[in-house]
Amino acid sequence: MSILKVSLLFSFFTLTTAFAQAQEDKLSLIKYVDPFIGTAKMGHTYPGATVPFGSIQLSPDTDTIPYAYEGKYNPDVYRYCAGYQYDDPTIVGFSHTHFSGTGHADLGDLLMMPTVGKLRLNPGTADQPDNGYRSRYAHDEESASPAYYQVLLKDYGINVELTSSTRVGMHRYTFPKTDQGHVILDLKAGTYPFEGKNVWTFLRIENDSTVTGYRQTQGWARTRTVYFALKFSKPFKSYGNEKHDEKQVYRGFWGRFDQSKNFPEIAGKEIRAYFDFEFEEDSDPLIAKMAISPVSTAGALANMETEIPHWDFEQVKREGEALWEQELRKVTVEMDDPDDMYNFYTSMYHASLGPTVYMDADGSYRGLDQNIHQADGFTNYTSFSLWDTYRALHPLYNIIQPERNADMINSMLAHADQSVHGMLPIWSHYANENWCMIGYHAVSVIADAMAKGVKGFDHEKALQASINTSNTSYFDGIGDYVALGYVPEDKSGSSVSKTLEYAYDDWAIAQMATQLKKDSIAQIYNHRSESYKHVYDNSIGFTRPKLSDGSFRTTFDPLDTHGQGFIEGNSWNYSLYVPHDPKSLIKMMGGNESFIQRLDSLFTMELPDKYFEKTEDITREGIIGNYVHGNEPSHHVVYLYNWTSQPQKSQDKIRNILKTMYQNSPDGLGGNDDFGQMSAWYIFSALGFYPVAPGSTEYALGSPLVKNASLPLSNGNTFKIIAKNQGPDRPFVKAVYLNGKELKEPFIDHADITSGGVLEFHMDKKPKKTK
Amino acid sequence: MSILKVSLLFSFFTLTTAFAQAQEDKLSLIKYVDPFIGTAKMGHTYPGATVPFGSIQLSPDTDTIPYAYEGKYNPDVYRYCAGYQYDDPTIVGFSHTHFSGTGHADLGDLLMMPTVGKLRLNPGTADQPDNGYRSRYAHDEESASPAYYQVLLKDYGINVELTSSTRVGMHRYTFPKTDQGHVILDLKAGTYPFEGKNVWTFLRIENDSTVTGYRQTQGWARTRTVYFALKFSKPFKSYGNEKHDEKQVYRGFWGRFDQSKNFPEIAGKEIRAYFDFEFEEDSDPLIAKMAISPVSTAGALANMETEIPHWDFEQVKREGEALWEQELRKVTVEMDDPDDMYNFYTSMYHASLGPTVYMDADGSYRGLDQNIHQADGFTNYTSFSLWDTYRALHPLYNIIQPERNADMINSMLAHADQSVHGMLPIWSHYANENWCMIGYHAVSVIADAMAKGVKGFDHEKALQASINTSNTSYFDGIGDYVALGYVPEDKSGSSVSKTLEYAYDDWAIAQMATQLKKDSIAQIYNHRSESYKHVYDNSIGFTRPKLSDGSFRTTFDPLDTHGQGFIEGNSWNYSLYVPHDPKSLIKMMGGNESFIQRLDSLFTMELPDKYFEKTEDITREGIIGNYVHGNEPSHHVVYLYNWTSQPQKSQDKIRNILKTMYQNSPDGLGGNDDFGQMSAWYIFSALGFYPVAPGSTEYALGSPLVKNASLPLSNGNTFKIIAKNQGPDRPFVKAVYLNGKELKEPFIDHADITSGGVLEFHMDKKPKKTK
Repeated sequence: MSILKVSLLFSFFTLTTAFAQAQEDKLSLIKYVDPFIGTAKMGHTYPGATVPFGSIQLSPDTDTIPYAYEGKYNPDVYRYCAGYQYDDPTIVGFSHTHFSGTGHADLGDLLMMPTVGKLRLNPGTADQPDNGYRSRYAHDEESASPAYYQVLLKDYGINVELTSSTRVGMHRYTFPKTDQGHVILDLKAGTYPFEGKNVWTFLRIENDSTVTGYRQTQGWARTRTVYFALKFSKPFKSYGNEKHDEKQVYRGFWGRFDQSKNFPEIAGKEIRAYFDFEFEEDSDPLIAKMAISPVSTAGALANMETEIPHWDFEQVKREGEALWEQELRKVTVEMDDPDDMYNFYTSMYHASLGPTVYMDADGSYRGLDQNIHQADGFTNYTSFSLWDTYRALHPLYNIIQPERNADMINSMLAHADQSVHGMLPIWSHYANENWCMIGYHAVSVIADAMAKGVKGFDHEKALQASINTSNTSYFDGIGDYVALGYVPEDKSGSSVSKTLEYAYDDWAIAQMATQLKKDSIAQIYNHRSESYKHVYDNSIGFTRPKLSDGSFRTTFDPLDTHGQGFIEGNSWNYSLYVPHDPKSLIKMMGGNESFIQRLDSLFTMELPDKYFEKTEDITREGIIGNYVHGNEPSHHVVYLYNWTSQPQKSQDKIRNILKTMYQNSPDGLGGNDDFGQMSAWYIFSALGFYPVAPGSTEYALGSPLVKNASLPLSNGNTFKIIAKNQGPDRPFVKAVYLNGKELKEPFIDHADITSGGVLEFHMDKKPKKTK
Repeated sequence: MSILKVSLLFSFFTLTTAFAQAQEDKLSLIKYVDPFIGTAKMGHTYPGATVPFGSIQLSPDTDTIPYAYEGKYNPDVYRYCAGYQYDDPTIVGFSHTHFSGTGHADLGDLLMMPTVGKLRLNPGTADQPDNGYRSRYAHDEESASPAYYQVLLKDYGINVELTSSTRVGMHRYTFPKTDQGHVILDLKAGTYPFEGKNVWTFLRIENDSTVTGYRQTQGWARTRTVYFALKFSKPFKSYGNEKHDEKQVYRGFWGRFDQSKNFPEIAGKEIRAYFDFEFEEDSDPLIAKMAISPVSTAGALANMETEIPHWDFEQVKREGEALWEQELRKVTVEMDDPDDMYNFYTSMYHASLGPTVYMDADGSYRGLDQNIHQADGFTNYTSFSLWDTYRALHPLYNIIQPERNADMINSMLAHADQSVHGMLPIWSHYANENWCMIGYHAVSVIADAMAKGVKGFDHEKALQASINTSNTSYFDGIGDYVALGYVPEDKSGSSVSKTLEYAYDDWAIAQMATQLKKDSIAQIYNHRSESYKHVYDNSIGFTRPKLSDGSFRTTFDPLDTHGQGFIEGNSWNYSLYVPHDPKSLIKMMGGNESFIQRLDSLFTMELPDKYFEKTEDITREGIIGNYVHGNEPSHHVVYLYNWTSQPQKSQDKIRNILKTMYQNSPDGLGGNDDFGQMSAWYIFSALGFYPVAPGSTEYALGSPLVKNASLPLSNGNTFKIIAKNQGPDRPFVKAVYLNGKELKEPFIDHADITSGGVLEFHMDKKPKKTK
């Protein structure tokens, strides 16, 4: 070897090493994301492969539990909202759509499973996996990171790797040598299954390696169709299916075909298809690409052609990782405890999983009216878990990515245009309104964006849609609410929660109207925003159910979460829900001292299990005293100390919540992540501030967990947070400086952020002495 | 009154009278159409309102019989293929889609029914009509003419009038004074219903007079959706629905709404909606417009806006009548017997009811792949009953409207493009292949058009699609047929019929190939066209089932239509099915004398009921001897005499068929009209010639029923037929002159027609003496 050659080789080595290092540096944050966090117990997250806000969530499903047994709701189904339970011993397969952290479910579409040996087309059971196509697996042979998931299917010796682009999931299956390799495509499988959930499925074998079709379901989304196109990297040898439809009286002239094997056109309610392959010892892995579309199979094919025209798994993974890195870098933080870093960036990850893109690469999408629309000048999103996400997730977007939030609002306005009710979404997904939970919190998302100067949507139109929504008299007690000033419990259940949330939403509408100088509208909604007072019983100091005749209901227990006029909460927590006017709330509740005492009690009193044990969204893990962090209604509560004389009382509690409710382990979440809301709470609180009343530009300060943080904003400015003397034993804030000037009150304004300020906390072991 | 005024008035009177007379003259042929012909017994026609080839067939349904009872086929359902049975005592309602004359069924979508009094949302039964929404009616208070239908609903005192444009049906309901007027929209109702037929229905009350939605069904079309938009001429007072879904375990958050009344968004499997109106003594009639679309509700609304933006019922009726008059004038005939005139123009009417337009006004339509396509430069049609219509209906179009036939072929080519099988339609409707009956007769339609010089479609592509279709090995025995030269009965039922029809179809492909100078292809298909010889058992003189091993099946009865290797026919009839080579057929069957004797026997022998009584498409009314005219396989048979030494033997038989199988009364048809094929046979035969082998330019002459006829062709020429000495007792032809020159053989060529010839028959009481 000549010196020249050695020299060249050395240079090459140096270069590639440097390149790898640069790559490593560039991808320095995604390593702090652990997709397994929240996959045990009730976090309801999934560990699979997805890109930020991607349409595809390609993830393993560990079981499929019927929504009901013998006509009665089966509570076990609740564990499978995201398809995966960390403690389950088997994997059923890998489906392409999952909600992250929701407390109700749907999706789990287009389940694929590679197997070896005798073909089995039923999933089998966890007890007897060998009876079905599912496989055992072990966590030490499983891994997950942003845009990547891997597992060894022990029963088959198949290594499965998954990655994804926005609309296309990619599978890489490394089979052992076999002449009996199969890939199952189960169009019957799905989350929250019940008899009749599958409405129709359609399947076409376009050629020896391409399949198209759709799955149409009823359920949480009443009328939902997912179109798909699937391509394999090598031709299948043969294929077939089993149809599990109810006994059909009508077969027509299709009876002349054996449709079960190598027949390219299948339709019916319940179809499980399979594709057969052979593999040598040294065969390349089998790669499968699955594209989805809300519009058509042609749309799915075009999406595949646009996003992943090739077969390079590593490239797709790399591109997905780069997208994640870019997303995570919207907030860079420094924290000493690696667990905190994992919790922070996994929260950032969970806060970027939805709402999801819901349109083809060409901008066409299915609207709420089931017609095909063109997203003109915006990206259309779906899956708005608004009762959760209006609180902190959308406010977070208004800081770190207002452009995306504007498009989410554009999507909601399109929804309202297409709605026969003229309503903004309540909880919408996949061209459907599912009406889940209460309130009309889309108005909060809009008001917050308007207050924070977010451009890119029609403000006037947004106000009008908000007004329409808030006046839909037949929706959930609104008629009575408008007439009486409260929702009467004898007319509409959970009446107190509704009254409280409508009052806040109406305040949000008033903010929009004020901003747009519509004074008479602002006046009406400011008036409505005081409705919370109508359900407050001064004699007991709690909100409680009121009847149509104006009297409070006599039976009442403020600790119970069942049947007391509230939803997923008790009066102790919900009575504090006046985020838009804490001052009046405090006054109403007897003033500063009394209110401080009440908050103190909330966090220290004991709440016996009986008061919440049948409430799906509240678990022991998510509770501190009687304060429920694992569910949303109290997410602002700890910050209410800021309006009292003792704001420092919030600080150790916030630190405690950050440390106990979010942990770096599969069972680390104190409750459902709720499509990013729990995570957004974490992100805000770890940064040291929180949007108590979205629609206001004010943030309440808390206790930062970060040592420092940097938020590069889209306006070119960078907002910086510094926590001096930070440490695990220093949750208290001695002083706060904004741009070097000490703050007198524990609040900052949105403009302080967007102007690129520096927020400096001085941390201490003990609370600051108060007046 | 001044003289001037009187004069003016007189002029005006004269003018309007003249105008009315001109109108009457212009509309002189539609009066000979009686839509009730074929509505009794098994004609399977419908009496309702439609325009030529219109997407809407708005017609009364007199009953709805389940396709099956307790899992077993219910033969009574067969009577309701077109929804209406003349002898039924009640009308259930008026639905918007119907097949004309088919022997199997689907459709009956979007049934509407106006009622008065207590709301009933079940149809009731014919026995107990008062228990449901149906109504009694009487034929003397009912009328039908092209584009118009009227009936008095006796139970409600409501006069119903219907008219239609291509994609929009219009209802005019004259209610009595009532504060309890209703219009029912039954989305569950439909022809050939069975449990699970309704897959999904969707309904939106867009405003107080507009409704949109869709009905998705399985059945004859496996995956079919009809989208609609409905507008009323005045607002409804209230509305509601009943959902008849199976017990649902899942209601989700929709349970918070009372969806049964005044709730604008309904979805489910089985929905019956209603709309309430009040009427005064002098209220205007209620008008309803129902537009349909294969694409979307937006498409339906646009279709309505394009075709009928107004509320003028009379204008729609007038325009529909004008379209019909224009259609009928493609053949003007003179006949002395008014019944013949009715039969002729009702045949012309029935021959213009399908295939139907299947695209929105903007050219978009749902393809076989369920994707939305744009009909680029052609009109897309659906409902191809090809086993029937290739014989005479499409050949008729090649004379009187080749442009439309070219677009039908374009539609079939688009179907093949979208087919995962790469196949031309067999029997297709509504973006589905239903695979009904046998053969691949689309190739015959194409070959006939090509032979007859029809332009406007891609001939090369059409040949390729034909070749693909004829080589789909898994379809109905084709693989074995290609390998063995016949379909073996042990592999595929009705094997002899298939072999015979494939042989003819292959000859048709050979004709195309020859025309396109593809000699090697022509050679292959000419060879395949002789396959009929393989199933002919010379020892008995009949075609009979052959097994894979080359032996004929031992058990065999040439009279029986059941289980003998034939479909809807017996060997006596089917053995004559070599339309492309009668000469060889005659030779194979023993020569001229023997063949004449065989034909004579066919028409005179007795066929006991047991041989056909369980064959749906064959009834006693449709039989002469053992000759079955009420079904298709023998439609060419009577013309086979032309290839013998005694062509005159066909002439009185043709006259007999024309007079007995087609009568001017509701029960006047000898069998299902089969989407115009029976009518096309009548039209050709009444004009004196018939296309025995579509794909050839040759027509066999018969015995004209007309005195004279004139066919104004689209090339500007006019073909004329004159029957001298015509009379009911003169079925025989003494001589025939083409353009004044006596014909030696009883055949003419297509060029004789298109060049605008004059065909003159000299009729006689007695047959011409033969050599």
